[in-house]
Amino acid sequence: MIQGVHFSLDTITWKELGWKSLAINLSDIAAMGGVPQYALVALALPEDTEVEDVAGLYEGMIELARQSQVAIIGGNVSRSPVVSVTITVLGNSLNNETMKRSTARPGDTIAITGYPGSAAAGLEMLTKKLRFGAETATYLRSAFVRPKPRVKEGQLLLKLGITTAIDTSDGLLADLRHICEASEVGARVNIDRLPVHPAVSSNFGERSHELALSGGEDYELLFTGSAEIIDRVRAEMEYPVTAIGEITSDEPGKISIIDADGNPVEITKTGWEHF
Amino acid sequence: MIQGVHFSLDTITWKELGWKSLAINLSDIAAMGGVPQYALVALALPEDTEVEDVAGLYEGMIELARQSQVAIIGGNVSRSPVVSVTITVLGNSLNNETMKRSTARPGDTIAITGYPGSAAAGLEMLTKKLRFGAETATYLRSAFVRPKPRVKEGQLLLKLGITTAIDTSDGLLADLRHICEASEVGARVNIDRLPVHPAVSSNFGERSHELALSGGEDYELLFTGSAEIIDRVRAEMEYPVTAIGEITSDEPGKISIIDADGNPVEITKTGWEHF
Repeated sequence: MIQGVHFSLDTITWKELGWKSLAINLSDIAAMGGVPQYALVALALPEDTEVEDVAGLYEGMIELARQSQVAIIGGNVSRSPVVSVTITVLGNSLNNETMKRSTARPGDTIAITGYPGSAAAGLEMLTKKLRFGAETATYLRSAFVRPKPRVKEGQLLLKLGITTAIDTSDGLLADLRHICEASEVGARVNIDRLPVHPAVSSNFGERSHELALSGGEDYELLFTGSAEIIDRVRAEMEYPVTAIGEITSDEPGKISIIDADGNPVEITKTGWEHF
Repeated sequence: MIQGVHFSLDTITWKELGWKSLAINLSDIAAMGGVPQYALVALALPEDTEVEDVAGLYEGMIELARQSQVAIIGGNVSRSPVVSVTITVLGNSLNNETMKRSTARPGDTIAITGYPGSAAAGLEMLTKKLRFGAETATYLRSAFVRPKPRVKEGQLLLKLGITTAIDTSDGLLADLRHICEASEVGARVNIDRLPVHPAVSSNFGERSHELALSGGEDYELLFTGSAEIIDRVRAEMEYPVTAIGEITSDEPGKISIIDADGNPVEITKTGWEHF
């Protein structure tokens, strides 16, 4: 997490920065269905950093570390022109198994946890200083600055027989493409099935689908598996899971998007356009 | 290793930067007598970084990793305003034992590997553009940009019964102080016993002792133990080891420096002064 690249202290507090820096690393382990155990924290800080800021940063990290049963066991502190937080998380796999990106098969259902696009909507609200009601504002801010790594959900997926997963850091489509390329398959996504949160759909209107497909930093789990296993996942997971499409035998990495009537939706540089 | 703080690309090549970034992390494991095994590399690079620069960086890391039987198993790459290399090294302890900073006892002999002050002399040569003969210039440059982590030496120390060690990153005196504070002891250093390399003594004259005592980044091992064990270390280690003083029961952290006649040497802000 590098100041001016991944965050601005105008839109995130030190405590939130601590939380998020650890969260995005735990999320990588969640995507494998692993058990995080130890964290090493390398901080680079400008000379004028206040002690209370560093304390806040650690408060945020420690809060999430406790919740996740992760021990912060060491690290490093350096002087630097910009704030940078580099965290290394170590963990174990359950029964020596992990979910991978490379095992998706044509016919697999594609599913996702939570509400993609919420973090991107939160970032837009913060940078454009958009005004919303308190509940909406809290949800959107939290989605961006305080993502919850889906560690338990990842472990449940693995337990239920899911072998293919990734966490959505780059955005739903970009991360689905990572799965497709690693698995040498294509994918079809039903745009009307995207689980857009009401706080996003009611405030970002037409752009909601674009945010859900291309907005990054949600740190949700995107995974594939047989329709049967996905049904079991939906039954057993308390957190929302939505089936959004299917893995195809199209050329590797090719993703098509269709609307409710099965018609293709084209991606343009300015957004999403039906034709 | 942060550009503008720990290094400048005016004085170090990308390959040397790769070597040194890994070396300083292996050195921490060397100071415990441990066995390094895995390295994770988090790179932060400006947008205009050339591919060949990154290849050079990895060449330097891989060269040292091979020599040290360490596998580079992952990491991360980010955009950043300045170059930063953050490496996490994982390893094991031999027989569940490690050397610590907190076990020095009054009466212990203090010893050091190699020639302290060489890296600081190298840095001074590079930044002040001092001109020396080829052999001297090569030695001094190498001492600063290509430190050798004393991994095997650390393991031998532990095997021979040394329990107290630190690597000299901050400088001999500063790192000796770390041992003294952690062990709640004092120390006495004989300035005439400091092993100053001829390339330093013949070119830096009066300042050689100051460089040896205060110059950082040598990444040698500074350790303490009974005179008997230190003698065995000197007999068995191929790399030079020099006894330079003794741990005392002085107030914790107090280090006195004496000359050949046993007279105290005072540290002043401008250097070292006999009185």
